[in-house]
Order: sequence, then C-alpha cells, then structure tokens
Amino acid sequence: MRMYDLIHKKRAGQELTTEEIYYMIEGFTDGSIPDYQMSAMTMAICFQGMSKRETVDLTLAMRDSGDVLDLSGIHGVKVDKHSTGGVGDKTSLALTPIIAALGVPVAKMSGRGLGHTGGTIDKLECFSGFTTGISEETFVKNVNEIGIAIAGQTANLAPADKKLYALRDVTATVDQMSLIASSIMSKKLASGSDAIVLDVKTGNGAFMKDLEDSVALAEEMVSIGTMAGKKTAAVITDMDQPLGYAVGNALEVLEALDTLEGRGPGDFQEVVFALGSLMLQFAGKAGDDAKARAMMESVIADGSAKKKFAEFIEAQGGDAAPVFDHSLLTLAQTVVPVAAERGGYVHRILAEDIGIACMSLGGGRETKESAIDLSVGIVLKKKNGDAVEAGDTLAVIYGNDDAKIARAKELILGAYEICDDPAEKQPVIRKYIFAE
Amino acid sequence: MRMYDLIHKKRAGQELTTEEIYYMIEGFTDGSIPDYQMSAMTMAICFQGMSKRETVDLTLAMRDSGDVLDLSGIHGVKVDKHSTGGVGDKTSLALTPIIAALGVPVAKMSGRGLGHTGGTIDKLECFSGFTTGISEETFVKNVNEIGIAIAGQTANLAPADKKLYALRDVTATVDQMSLIASSIMSKKLASGSDAIVLDVKTGNGAFMKDLEDSVALAEEMVSIGTMAGKKTAAVITDMDQPLGYAVGNALEVLEALDTLEGRGPGDFQEVVFALGSLMLQFAGKAGDDAKARAMMESVIADGSAKKKFAEFIEAQGGDAAPVFDHSLLTLAQTVVPVAAERGGYVHRILAEDIGIACMSLGGGRETKESAIDLSVGIVLKKKNGDAVEAGDTLAVIYGNDDAKIARAKELILGAYEICDDPAEKQPVIRKYIFAE
Repeated sequence: MRMYDLIHKKRAGQELTTEEIYYMIEGFTDGSIPDYQMSAMTMAICFQGMSKRETVDLTLAMRDSGDVLDLSGIHGVKVDKHSTGGVGDKTSLALTPIIAALGVPVAKMSGRGLGHTGGTIDKLECFSGFTTGISEETFVKNVNEIGIAIAGQTANLAPADKKLYALRDVTATVDQMSLIASSIMSKKLASGSDAIVLDVKTGNGAFMKDLEDSVALAEEMVSIGTMAGKKTAAVITDMDQPLGYAVGNALEVLEALDTLEGRGPGDFQEVVFALGSLMLQFAGKAGDDAKARAMMESVIADGSAKKKFAEFIEAQGGDAAPVFDHSLLTLAQTVVPVAAERGGYVHRILAEDIGIACMSLGGGRETKESAIDLSVGIVLKKKNGDAVEAGDTLAVIYGNDDAKIARAKELILGAYEICDDPAEKQPVIRKYIFAE
Repeated sequence: MRMYDLIHKKRAGQELTTEEIYYMIEGFTDGSIPDYQMSAMTMAICFQGMSKRETVDLTLAMRDSGDVLDLSGIHGVKVDKHSTGGVGDKTSLALTPIIAALGVPVAKMSGRGLGHTGGTIDKLECFSGFTTGISEETFVKNVNEIGIAIAGQTANLAPADKKLYALRDVTATVDQMSLIASSIMSKKLASGSDAIVLDVKTGNGAFMKDLEDSVALAEEMVSIGTMAGKKTAAVITDMDQPLGYAVGNALEVLEALDTLEGRGPGDFQEVVFALGSLMLQFAGKAGDDAKARAMMESVIADGSAKKKFAEFIEAQGGDAAPVFDHSLLTLAQTVVPVAAERGGYVHRILAEDIGIACMSLGGGRETKESAIDLSVGIVLKKKNGDAVEAGDTLAVIYGNDDAKIARAKELILGAYEICDDPAEKQPVIRKYIFAE
C-alpha cells in the first residue's frame, strides 16, 4: 500500500477502505507518512468529502493511535459531555456537580483553554490549592466515593488527532465536517465513557456559524458515536451571543455557583438542564425529560449539588470556602461600565469579540505559554432582544490595567449590534439530535 | 502575508495576486514555506485551477527563482524546442543539425533520461568520447562557429520548479494543466532563447491521453510564452504508438542518421519537418511553411545537415565516424523477432509498454543512479493501420540477456492491439497551436 495511491484515489472522489484509512493513520502517527502527503490528503478530503463509513473508520483509527482508557474500575454508567466551544461556556462547572449529586459518576479529563477564556481547569484554579495532578488511583477512588473527579489529560489519547489537527491548523483544512467530527469523537471514544452527550454551538461565536452546518456536524458525531457502540446524542445551542452574562474565569465560577443556588441566568440554566437531562436518561437515572428536570431542580433546591461541588474541590486540594461565601473569590479591582452610544434593540453580540476582549484583559491565553489573570473579565448587562437607551450600561469590565480596559471597551462596543427595530429573542436550545 | 491565507484563498476558489504568487514561490524556494503547506496549496489548485494570469505569474516566479541565462553572446535568433516526451522520440538528434545547417543557432541544455529510454545526452554518448561537459566559453564559441552546441544542465535553472515537481510527484498533484504548463515553461524561459517551439504529444503513450487535453496544455503554454514576450507555437503530435520504428539509444541514433540521409520513417520525418518549419520561420529564415520545407529537404539532399551533425559531434570530443559508416555503431548481439500470435489490423501500440520493454532490456534508467545499456532496444516492424498475419514479425528485439529479452517479448506482444476490422492510419501531426 502506498500513501501516493490513497491521495490519488481520494482526489478522484473514490472511497478509501477501512484498511487504507488505518494504514494512513498508523503511518502518519509513526512518521513514516510525511506531513506533506497528509496535508495533500486533507485538502483532497475538503473537496471530495468522506462517506459516513470512512468518517467512522478515521475516528476509530485515530482513537486506536494511542491509549484507550479503561474506566471499568468506576461503578455505574459513565456519561461524558463535550462542547464544541463558545464564549462564556461554564457549563461543566454547574452541570457536573448536579449530575454527580444524582448518582451519575463524573470521570472527566479536561484541558486548559487557549484563546478567549481559560478552560475548565483554569476556572477551577480560582479555588486556591486545587489541582488536577492526582494519581490514577486517587482519580478512581474519588469518583467512586464522591462521584466526581477531574484530571488533566496525562494519558496519550488519540495522538494521531493531535498531530493531524496541528497540520490542518496551518494548511487551511480545519473546517471540513468529517475531519472536525472525527477529531472530536476520536478523543471522546478514547476517554472510555459509556455514553456521550454533545453540546454543538451554533452562531457567530461558534465554529459552525449557521444552524444547517451545526446540525450536520451534530448528526455526523452522533452517527459516529452510535456506530462505535456508545449511546450518543447532541443538543444544538445558541452562540449568537455569549452564554449567560459572565465571561472570564472567576466571574464564570461565580455565575456557575449562582446557578447551583438556583439564581443563574435563564439561558445558561437551560443549557445545563438540557444536557443534564440527556445524561441522566443515558445513565438510566430518569425515564424522561420531565423527570430528569425535576430531579435536577431538587438537588439545586436542597443544596446537595452545591455541597457536591464543595466536596469535589476539597478532594482535589482546593479551598472550598468561596463556594459558600462568593465574596472570597478574587475579582479585578477596576470595574468600568461600558455605556451604549445609541438606543434601540440588541440584535446580535459578536461573541468572539467579547471573548477577545476578555483575552486582551489578560483572561485568556494568546499562546500556550501565556500566564492567565483569573480575576479579569466582562459581565454583560444587555443581551439579544433587550431594549437599550443611549447611555445604558451594556456591560461591565473587570480589569487590572487601564490600557487593556480601554481596548476591551472598544471591542465590546463594536461587538454589540443595536438597531432601531425590535429584535426577537432566540431560544438557546435550537435542536436535539438523536441517533437514527 | 501568510501562506495560510493564500491556501485558504485558493481553497475558496479565489484568484491569487502576482505579489502573493511571488511570495509563495520565493518562500517555498528558500524553505521558509514548508512542504506541507505547499502540497496543500497544489492540491487546492488541482480542484480550483488557476487563471491564465495566475499561471503566467507562477511561471515567471519559478523562472526568477534561479539563474536566467544570457545568450546575448550568441549571434542570430535563438529558437528553443521542447517535447513533452514520448517513446521513440529522437527528434532533437535529426532536427538540430538540419536547422543549424540552415543558419539557425542551436544552443541547447539537455538532460539525461529517466524511465523508458535515455535522454538526448545518453543517445549522443553512442559516439565514443562525446561529452556535454564543456565550458561556457566553448559552448558559446561552438554555437557561433559551428552553429550547434549541447551542454548538460549546469546552471541553476528554475530551482523552484525542481522542488515543486518533486513534491507534486509524491502527492498525486502532477496532472494539473496550469502546474504542468508553468513547470515546462519556467525552465524554457530561464534558458534564454528568443523563441520557443513546443512538441506536445497526445495519445496512450503521452502524458496527455486525449487530444482535447493536449490542445488545452499547448494553448496554455503558447499563451504563457507569448505573454512572457517570446514567440511561441506548438505542434500536437501523435503518441498512440512510438514515433518512427526505433526505440533504444543506438537504434534511435541510427534512425536519426537515416533521416539525415533522407531515408527516415515518414512519421518521424514529418514531425522533424513540422517543428523545423516553425523554427525557421521564427528565426526569420523562411517566409512560409513551403519555403521552410524546401530548405530542409535541400540540406538533407546535399548532405550538409549530416556534415553539420558530424562537425558538432567532433567539436564536443566525439568520434564522428559512425555518422558516415552506420555499421560502426554498437548494437546488441542477440536479435530476436517477435511474431504476431493472430492476424488482423494493428489498432494501437501501447507506447509506454514498448518503452518499458526497452527499459527492461537495460536501455533506460529505473532510478537516477542506474547504468544504461546503449546497445539494446526494439525496432518495430508493424505500426498502426498495418495488416498483420499470424506469424508475421511485429518487432525485433536487440538484447544482451535472454531473461530480459523474454520479458520484453511479452511486453511487446501485450502492447500490440490487433483486431479483425481494418484500422485507419492517423496523421502524426494532429494540430498546430499559434498565439491568439
């Protein structure tokens, strides 16, 4: 078998066999197939696409390129959750303690963020002492005893995907449906969970800008997961504005804590409930959506979700005091309102620009080596559909540097699209995608 | 400027600017743009194509990536000739002494062959002592005094093309019209001639299998040459069978010498005359085709073309005796006829398989390092359109190794397509392409 022939075949629009796809991914992983052949192949795939069967094979070949975790030491049905990424997305922080409080084991590998805001691990480091550097033994023990543990990714999961993504990133071949779907799903399948719930964002701040593409991506991923033998479903959620009000690490932790107390923003709580409902049903804890929602409301109302969160923080070395006294979370000292320059209705908030504003305040990483300021961020005061008068506060900036604050202010003003005619509020949950 | 953005632009079907194309080729040549980005770009070009303007810019950028020869020390109008390559193509051997004898200076850079049969230099080495390792001074002096000199390619001509071709060769991106045309023309334009005549082969043994593609390639190259300020024209010639009868180095020299004596195969002489006529007209030596043909016939008839060839061989250290006594050329000792297994009419001779048969006898290079046996080869006895009876000799093999001869025999039998119904003889000259 020669990679040349596989490129030629794909260029001509023919389907690659399972054997050919494994040959390609194994050779690319061990370096016997050079980058320049693989990049020609990915470009050919951008034009010719891949069949569902090819996409599943690519996913499985990438899954098998490294370790596949064995979570059999953890009791119960392990349900993983993945988001395609958006601005203000603190869903994991609120969702995991809620479902853990309801007896669904949460055994999660998380990464640090790059870009916009920090990742889940960065946000958890707002609790001083918190660490994801725990042994595998502690990880399994914590999940079995407390119901929740989050570790930094140490295992060698889907190295082929890591290498391929890095190559696609510099050859303008990132935005191809089958390549995106297989990239996400190869890592999920290597993580060893029994079921997978996907949060696929749609809108200006999402990777997929329009609903049709988001649905296609979700369908592709659900189909891959299902064909690989895992219960899989997806929720398409709105990213035509940031999720909730808070953007920035400590501010997002605060909003997640508010949500665990039943005082979270409506759109954010809705995303948490939609995903949580599917997870509870997959885990066999709830028979239907109404039942699942009632269960989640009860662990919020009786404080057990919040208590679960504190237990988890403490079990990984963190000081959980801020869970019960929010004023203990460190926020930036300089608080500057951003006033609307005109009246009207908010039609759109360019989520990516809000994310960049947060990053420019120091709240996100521009490169892997960047230090991150957990205390800075933005709290939105107006969202899509809201009426605004000139001079009204659109958002509040939390910053530690006047020049950076001035730059963030400009970005925020530019991100708000305010028009004269009223704007309809879009529902945050746009669509559910289940296996066929 | 970033290569990433250029790949993205081309992938989206947009046109690259002149500045962008130069940036890309300069960066690729100096190594600042890596192979994996360039291979993604060439694959995108395979799907999106290039405009005429982009193709000209790519050609000029590749021409400018290395030396551009200055032939101003050579008197007269320098006309270069290029063939896209075929089996049995010994055109340069006969053509150059004919037009040199008519006062058109021939200052040629030639390469060694890879594959099928040897290149022009290999064939010339049938004259013992002949060398292309002459100084620039001798090269210019010989052209001015004798009218003809051939040197091995020593100058750094179009290094970007060399690098790009090597990359395309391993990423299944060779057969794209604009990339082929710019590759050929960048070298031609760097060679410093005043006018260019192209021999574009068409048929089963050619790079372009059908006439339409061959015409498109020829038009593209003529347009590039013209836009670059050179008189350029092309002749589409048949390669649905080998050119002439002889395939193999010494055998081809013999056929070229026969042609210089007016006894060459009709199809081969026709190609020599068609190309020579254009060269003479571009050089201002003949006003029209009829005049040019009469001139060529006269230098064959009076022996001056043959004399010019001998002068040239001697000036570059070769023993010219075989020019006048063909029996002095060394041919392989074992001569084996290949008999037809059935009767009928020859519809097609797979030229490439005849070439491979010659290579397998030792007459061509499988790798750059291979030694080459100049004495072996094949002489066809039946060509397209000929009637054949079972047992008739289709071809004669000249070999030095029985096992290799047996293999060649099989290949030759397989290359002949013999059917019951009569086949029409196709003209060897299929079309002329001139600047619009």
